Amino acid sequence: MGKMYEFTKMHGLGNCYIYMDGITRPLDIPDMAALARRVSDPAFGIGSDGLILILPSDRADVKMRIFNKDGSEAKNCGNGLRCVARYCFEHQLVDKPAFEIETLSGNRHATVHTEHSVVTGVTIDMDQPILQRRLIPVAGGDGDRKVIRDKLTVFGTDYQFTAVSMGNPHALFFVDDVADAPIDQLGPLLADTYPLFPEGANIGFVHPISESAIDYRVWERGSGITQACGTGACAAVVASILEQRLPKDHPITVHLAGGDLTVQWDATTNHVLMTGSAEVICTGTYYDSQV
Amino acid sequence: MGKMYEFTKMHGLGNCYIYMDGITRPLDIPDMAALARRVSDPAFGIGSDGLILILPSDRADVKMRIFNKDGSEAKNCGNGLRCVARYCFEHQLVDKPAFEIETLSGNRHATVHTEHSVVTGVTIDMDQPILQRRLIPVAGGDGDRKVIRDKLTVFGTDYQFTAVSMGNPHALFFVDDVADAPIDQLGPLLADTYPLFPEGANIGFVHPISESAIDYRVWERGSGITQACGTGACAAVVASILEQRLPKDHPITVHLAGGDLTVQWDATTNHVLMTGSAEVICTGTYYDSQV
Repeated sequence: MGKMYEFTKMHGLGNCYIYMDGITRPLDIPDMAALARRVSDPAFGIGSDGLILILPSDRADVKMRIFNKDGSEAKNCGNGLRCVARYCFEHQLVDKPAFEIETLSGNRHATVHTEHSVVTGVTIDMDQPILQRRLIPVAGGDGDRKVIRDKLTVFGTDYQFTAVSMGNPHALFFVDDVADAPIDQLGPLLADTYPLFPEGANIGFVHPISESAIDYRVWERGSGITQACGTGACAAVVASILEQRLPKDHPITVHLAGGDLTVQWDATTNHVLMTGSAEVICTGTYYDSQV
Repeated sequence: MGKMYEFTKMHGLGNCYIYMDGITRPLDIPDMAALARRVSDPAFGIGSDGLILILPSDRADVKMRIFNKDGSEAKNCGNGLRCVARYCFEHQLVDKPAFEIETLSGNRHATVHTEHSVVTGVTIDMDQPILQRRLIPVAGGDGDRKVIRDKLTVFGTDYQFTAVSMGNPHALFFVDDVADAPIDQLGPLLADTYPLFPEGANIGFVHPISESAIDYRVWERGSGITQACGTGACAAVVASILEQRLPKDHPITVHLAGGDLTVQWDATTNHVLMTGSAEVICTGTYYDSQV
């Protein structure tokens, strides 16, 4: 007969996961990777980008564990963090709107915004950007320096890029129109196996539209074109400021295919704050045919 | 705030739909096509091949309406019929295991099989096959005759096919191994715009493995390769019998990518009976953000 699991499907800008609450009631999941693959299957399962477990934590208010749809465990996910924060607040797993979420890449501070008791958005403190070449990492050059407007020649064309890590590596290319950006050429070439990026890189294209807004499209390493990348939106704003295309310490609206995020690189703390929506698609019971 | 809808996601051999019950409680759906598109979206919705509404009927025990994920209304769906039958029986929308389901292409008789009160499968009477050339339809030739082992030359290669309509047109090619079948060549060429098939055709490849089992793969018109096609499995058995590759009036196991079906062409009634599984994936509440 299999097991039954209570779940909530939520998305942040179209980045969707199945969320299971292990705080209200302990979860009995014999194999988390296998369950992530089954619930994520679009035809035989609910369908999602993966499975996120909300669990008790010893060193934060709650803990999240993220399993991608292939079963691999992810360190962090900006869109997932916003959804976890909303879930914990609305289900009173925490007793305050600002709290700490433990992830595999460290604790993240979340603030849930409400108007008349309705959640209107969530801010996640995405920590400091990592700018040293050897830590991003980008191969070659002076490992202690930043990577700003570095030259790159591919297919006989000269490009410039700026590199930023938000826990994962991003290479940002500034363009006049993200719709026309060479994402299908540079994405597959650079994201996963290009020697310049020893751990791969998310390949982003950025167009500043004003002093307070940018367009951003991304080819994610291991995934290809996606609708939204939270860390990428943060990296795009940091790179815009590093290239002096945007003022520091102002909230910047980032337009992504899946929707908008607001990103602010705080001058005092050097932390990057990401604000955006977290939406509930459905809640219910999943009938797992395998045990 | 949007509306809330109770739903069940079910699949038959991986062909999955969101099912909503308009018998237990009337449904308030302002725009069914738009709701089908929203619930079917894999990222912003639940994710499915479409939306199936279970409704009261004047001329059968229940009525089903099928909306594809693009919002278009479908006439019929063998995999969906099995799921509707299981749902109606388990939720006591009918008081007997054998009953009639109204579809846009006429009433279909369903029989729900149980063991110790657990549903083990569903049989759908798929009606008589349509074998006259002009009714399938296949262009050219004698419109009153059957289309058995007709010659077709494409890409300099000679093929033979047999054509059968199960309410929708199918062209069946017999091969030694369905895994090696030229599905990627013949599917796109023949399914949608080939003059021989004025209404298109589902392009199927059949390999009889024994007197009681066949392998079957399909390129569906308008869709491409799919995991399962209920009418196609029926057509494949009918074509096998027409070509005298299988005995008539025996249950034949059809192996599809998404699982197995059992098909029997009944000699007495001339009807084709299809038996297979109908599985519940999840039940819950969908939060529709649009009104």
